[in-house]
Amino acid sequence: MSVIVEKYGGTSVGSIERIQSVSRNVAEKVKLGNKPVVVVSAMSGETNRLVELAKSMTTRPSAREMDTLLSTGEQVTIALLSFALQDLGVSAQSFTGFQVPIVTDSAHGRARITKIDVEAINAALETGKVAVVAGFQGISPTNKITTLGRGGSDTTAVALAVALKADECRIYTDVDGVYTADPRVVEEATRIPKITYEEMLEMSGSGAKVMQIRAVEFASKYEMPLRVLSSFEPDEGTLITKEEDVMEQPMISGITSIDGEAKVTVRGVPDRPGIAYSILGPISDAHINVDMIVQNVSTDDTTDLTFTINQEDLQPALDLLAPVVRELDAETVVGDSNLAKISVIGVGMRSHAGIATTMFKALAEKGINIQIISTSEIKISVTIDREYRELAVRTLHNAFRLEERGRKG
Amino acid sequence: MSVIVEKYGGTSVGSIERIQSVSRNVAEKVKLGNKPVVVVSAMSGETNRLVELAKSMTTRPSAREMDTLLSTGEQVTIALLSFALQDLGVSAQSFTGFQVPIVTDSAHGRARITKIDVEAINAALETGKVAVVAGFQGISPTNKITTLGRGGSDTTAVALAVALKADECRIYTDVDGVYTADPRVVEEATRIPKITYEEMLEMSGSGAKVMQIRAVEFASKYEMPLRVLSSFEPDEGTLITKEEDVMEQPMISGITSIDGEAKVTVRGVPDRPGIAYSILGPISDAHINVDMIVQNVSTDDTTDLTFTINQEDLQPALDLLAPVVRELDAETVVGDSNLAKISVIGVGMRSHAGIATTMFKALAEKGINIQIISTSEIKISVTIDREYRELAVRTLHNAFRLEERGRKG
Repeated sequence: MSVIVEKYGGTSVGSIERIQSVSRNVAEKVKLGNKPVVVVSAMSGETNRLVELAKSMTTRPSAREMDTLLSTGEQVTIALLSFALQDLGVSAQSFTGFQVPIVTDSAHGRARITKIDVEAINAALETGKVAVVAGFQGISPTNKITTLGRGGSDTTAVALAVALKADECRIYTDVDGVYTADPRVVEEATRIPKITYEEMLEMSGSGAKVMQIRAVEFASKYEMPLRVLSSFEPDEGTLITKEEDVMEQPMISGITSIDGEAKVTVRGVPDRPGIAYSILGPISDAHINVDMIVQNVSTDDTTDLTFTINQEDLQPALDLLAPVVRELDAETVVGDSNLAKISVIGVGMRSHAGIATTMFKALAEKGINIQIISTSEIKISVTIDREYRELAVRTLHNAFRLEERGRKG
Repeated sequence: MSVIVEKYGGTSVGSIERIQSVSRNVAEKVKLGNKPVVVVSAMSGETNRLVELAKSMTTRPSAREMDTLLSTGEQVTIALLSFALQDLGVSAQSFTGFQVPIVTDSAHGRARITKIDVEAINAALETGKVAVVAGFQGISPTNKITTLGRGGSDTTAVALAVALKADECRIYTDVDGVYTADPRVVEEATRIPKITYEEMLEMSGSGAKVMQIRAVEFASKYEMPLRVLSSFEPDEGTLITKEEDVMEQPMISGITSIDGEAKVTVRGVPDRPGIAYSILGPISDAHINVDMIVQNVSTDDTTDLTFTINQEDLQPALDLLAPVVRELDAETVVGDSNLAKISVIGVGMRSHAGIATTMFKALAEKGINIQIISTSEIKISVTIDREYRELAVRTLHNAFRLEERGRKG
């Protein structure tokens, strides 16, 4: 009998009917002889309702009490799912964060898991019970209720799977896996049966919304196989695993795109050591995350420095840099939020030359101008004019023949 | 600086505005140099909402998961009240049942408090924080979330007051104290400034709805002064305390009435030892609570046995007794749910003769027929035809001149 950890997100438990549907899914696993540990989120809409209640009380809710408030959302779901399972004749026991316990640090709203004691869950499993665990929440060493922040329930599931030495951690969501590109943009996009942790991380970081980076990092660290699948039409989904387990690795796994970024260019900077620091230091001090950075080699005695940041940080960044430009005796600073970033991702890049050439050639043939290029070992990203976003994704999907990549695992 | 424990019920925290009003009330106490510990219920309507969710999931919800579900109601309130206090610049810290901890036995849905560790609350109070505690909930020795059942939050407040050695436990509710009679029935009813635990217990047990018996028993056991007052128009309310502290004790404190009872009479029972047991044994075995019992002295060789039970138990009781009547060779068994019970309560009865006479005379003068009489040391109860209920209460209130009893404490 193997322990499997399954996580159902807010949409999957968004109504009485959906919770009942989840309970039938779990009951099926029990019938097959498995020992399911089920991690659930708050019913969709519930977290927003609680946040609104808090906002109506104060404009600056304390992070600590916010965690006490928000953690009730998952607590309601674990009780309801346990009822649904019991109604099917399946014995179940619910666990809040403190009951597991899932010990975290004290960073309210973005706590990190430090320790999971699985004794109580194992005791429940040994007596034939399904363990129903509240995702997203934990307990600090000083007995405070904490929450894990965005993607927290996924992280709970992976951490539990690691602690329980489960065979696999299954993330049930409202899509049936990871695709070679966004199916709303590329009609021929296919589901990827297997993908490596690294590729998934690069995809999540560059626009794919299926998985939160944090849970994938956690799974990667402990080599816990992670499967993303639909709770509405259960199928094989996409298995995220270590590189050795992904046979017949295609060169490119997927194309992602994102358009929430903006570009800042400081022109005509006198070319001397330390200018990158002078410009990027104040940006970093203001907690503005910088994504891509390019410094053009100067033709005369000046250089241009360009970097990308989140769109909402554009105005603050321009304001910060105005005095810096004067100090450095640079020419000017300009911003542009009219851009999209397109990324081509695949571990196969390591062993195959010419990926960049294929990419640049395909975009050039469609008249798409590349602004900035940045590369990692398994990713090439370019920024382009935003209006070409969809065309660029389709063009690259076609250029790398990804419609042939998706196969059943 | 004195520790005061205040409890606010569901109506008192029933909306954002009311929680804000409670926070202003608490902030005022802080300004006066007190250290408030505030116990709150779920917002009115919230518990029903959760119960409906459970019912839509299963017809037989497990008591354990029900407690996990219901306890979220108070958890939401403690976070919201903490926000409201913080918004007023008052430092506050919330406590769920397990965070205090309030240790209970494992009887889900009707758990009893076995131990309260006040270390964490005292630590919060010492750093100048208001402690905001979830009522109604606790934690079992095996780490299960429990709830205390009806009147649970009042019990939490009293138990906390005892554990913290508070000067007084204040129960804020939607009425401004305990009255000599229900003011909706008797216009001249006055608020009782002070009343003994025993009188309050008898009043609660015979129709007064202000306080749950359990919390009063708890307060009585530990001699914790209990004050009932309105959260909407704060005033002196009613102080429930030990007999020595109630000066100028009037003979009668109040008149109560209740009409949810029914009467069962077994007629023509052969008069021999053990017949009361033969009749009441099966009733007790069926977990039907019996209130008053009267056995008429027989004129011939037979006797009549009459007892009262809850109205909803009438039909089951009659069904149970049908075969018993045949076995005992009794005449018949009849039921009557058309009755009301009227009680006259006061510790002064112990030292004053003639209370019963005054009571029976007053009722007779209005043509009200008395069916059953039962007495305790500080209470006389009678059952009458239900249509005379209000008239009987007004008549007795007048006969004992209770409109003169209420004075400011």
